Amino acid sequence: MTKTNNKQIAVVGTGVIGVGWIVRFLAHGYDVVATDPAEGAEQKLREGVAHAWPYMERMGLAEGASQDRLRFEADLKEAVRDAVFVQENVPEREGLKRQVLADIDASTDRETVIASSTSGITPSTLQQDCAHPERIIVGHPFNPVYLLPLVEIVGGEHTSQEMIDKASDIYKAIAMKPLVIQKEVEGHVADRLMEALWREALHIVNDGVATTEEVDAAITYGAGLRWAQMGPFLTFHLAGGDEGMKHMLKQFGPALKLPWTKLEAPELTDELKDKVIEGTEQSAGNKPVQELEKQRNEFLVRLLDLVEEYWPEPQTILQNEQK
Amino acid sequence: MTKTNNKQIAVVGTGVIGVGWIVRFLAHGYDVVATDPAEGAEQKLREGVAHAWPYMERMGLAEGASQDRLRFEADLKEAVRDAVFVQENVPEREGLKRQVLADIDASTDRETVIASSTSGITPSTLQQDCAHPERIIVGHPFNPVYLLPLVEIVGGEHTSQEMIDKASDIYKAIAMKPLVIQKEVEGHVADRLMEALWREALHIVNDGVATTEEVDAAITYGAGLRWAQMGPFLTFHLAGGDEGMKHMLKQFGPALKLPWTKLEAPELTDELKDKVIEGTEQSAGNKPVQELEKQRNEFLVRLLDLVEEYWPEPQTILQNEQK
Repeated sequence: MTKTNNKQIAVVGTGVIGVGWIVRFLAHGYDVVATDPAEGAEQKLREGVAHAWPYMERMGLAEGASQDRLRFEADLKEAVRDAVFVQENVPEREGLKRQVLADIDASTDRETVIASSTSGITPSTLQQDCAHPERIIVGHPFNPVYLLPLVEIVGGEHTSQEMIDKASDIYKAIAMKPLVIQKEVEGHVADRLMEALWREALHIVNDGVATTEEVDAAITYGAGLRWAQMGPFLTFHLAGGDEGMKHMLKQFGPALKLPWTKLEAPELTDELKDKVIEGTEQSAGNKPVQELEKQRNEFLVRLLDLVEEYWPEPQTILQNEQK
Repeated sequence: MTKTNNKQIAVVGTGVIGVGWIVRFLAHGYDVVATDPAEGAEQKLREGVAHAWPYMERMGLAEGASQDRLRFEADLKEAVRDAVFVQENVPEREGLKRQVLADIDASTDRETVIASSTSGITPSTLQQDCAHPERIIVGHPFNPVYLLPLVEIVGGEHTSQEMIDKASDIYKAIAMKPLVIQKEVEGHVADRLMEALWREALHIVNDGVATTEEVDAAITYGAGLRWAQMGPFLTFHLAGGDEGMKHMLKQFGPALKLPWTKLEAPELTDELKDKVIEGTEQSAGNKPVQELEKQRNEFLVRLLDLVEEYWPEPQTILQNEQK
């Protein structure tokens, strides 16, 4: 039973995100105690877990992983008491989250990491009412949580590096890719990037330039295929020929001044240029662009073969095109 | 020889984009005549084609497809003379493009479609100096052109529907997904979306919130995986539970007012809401969200298995995490 106690996780709030966390922890062989005050929460939760389980079986379950290792506990304080790690997913209201986190803080061992799934609220705000704020972090996942590996870790003013490291280790143990964000900003990093694209998409629909379906197609049949493997910086690095990002900024830097989006770009100062070029070259692992291209092409050949089966059938576009 | 003459394509300008087009047309069994005034252009072109050819073999070549069906012709007018379709890819300078398109216009049969790969210039601008502007279109592809299926078709003020349809048919014949854009705007649709994300990415690096590598990771391990299959509208549709986009706009509409990005969102009017909800439901093919989720999850399970091999090795992030 020692092993079990060491690995006990508590999940507070069992909406879509909470269920996603629970599935991921269970599939990796953890004991999970879940709590949620909503009526019928336990039944809905168990259905949600059962629904996602076949995908986890296909991804490969850890030894001893079982849906039976989920316990539902109506009382919050009771639910978190023996947990080494608590993931909070209550509705996105600052007052509520602060209250729940303070309750968890008061009911757990000081060594317990307490992570909030918040997408919008900064950890310094969230940890204000806690007696031991050093173990309060943001651990922001992406839907579906049991499949997408990204989790953004953000520490607040009072968070300790030790607790960030602990959280990072736990997330890695459930096959996630933890990304430690250095600076607290609303929306963290990934949601800000998505929100920029989303706002531009709304402008395009609003201005009558394209329909929602056309906007979707403009992503899935193009950039979306590249972004599954490489982010925007490495993608542009590959568009710059042998010189990579250096050439790219020279050639397309001026385009930042064009009214191509409703978003004003930052001034391309020498400092920013250096950051971008050096950062990209570093993450390219100093591999020549040609080698990265080879890697990208081999991926794309296999991805195109796969995704063809899964693209939603175009409705309007198809009709337009087939006249 | 009749068949060959019917299918002759001319590609003007043999940089990265031009070579990409040539590879795609050759692989689908077309005869291609290429032209470019640069010194050593022919040799560089043939090397580029040979370099990409193995990927096309893996994607499956059309009957009779061969690298030998590429002819290089130094003289522009001679190169385009017998083509049923011309794809222009000269450098992105308005004056130069207008001149080259006018020359092509003067040297081809009136039935020949003339497409420009321009990413930034509108077709109404490009067709101004042509005697037969009705067959001038924008046909904007994405790198690598021989693998990514997206091509944006935009007609200008004088372009005929017949020519847009013809272009669409030719692009479909080379396994592309032509997207006809209804309204001319600089950057068309896909580049505007990418540029919005790119500008936000530069702001994030500029403000010291994250490094280029972290920004890339924030895309590839999360949204990028979803966007390979579903665009932003369908993605949010799935995040809205059973009610889909309708619920989504209710829940996250207010977030459009938050300073999460440097981009100001449009006002969420009833008209825009209707466009977004109806458009998304239509492209969902009226399938329930649960069914779309199933499709997404099955795709993600297979994609995650595939992409793991191809993600670039994280450099700095890995070090940070492993302490």
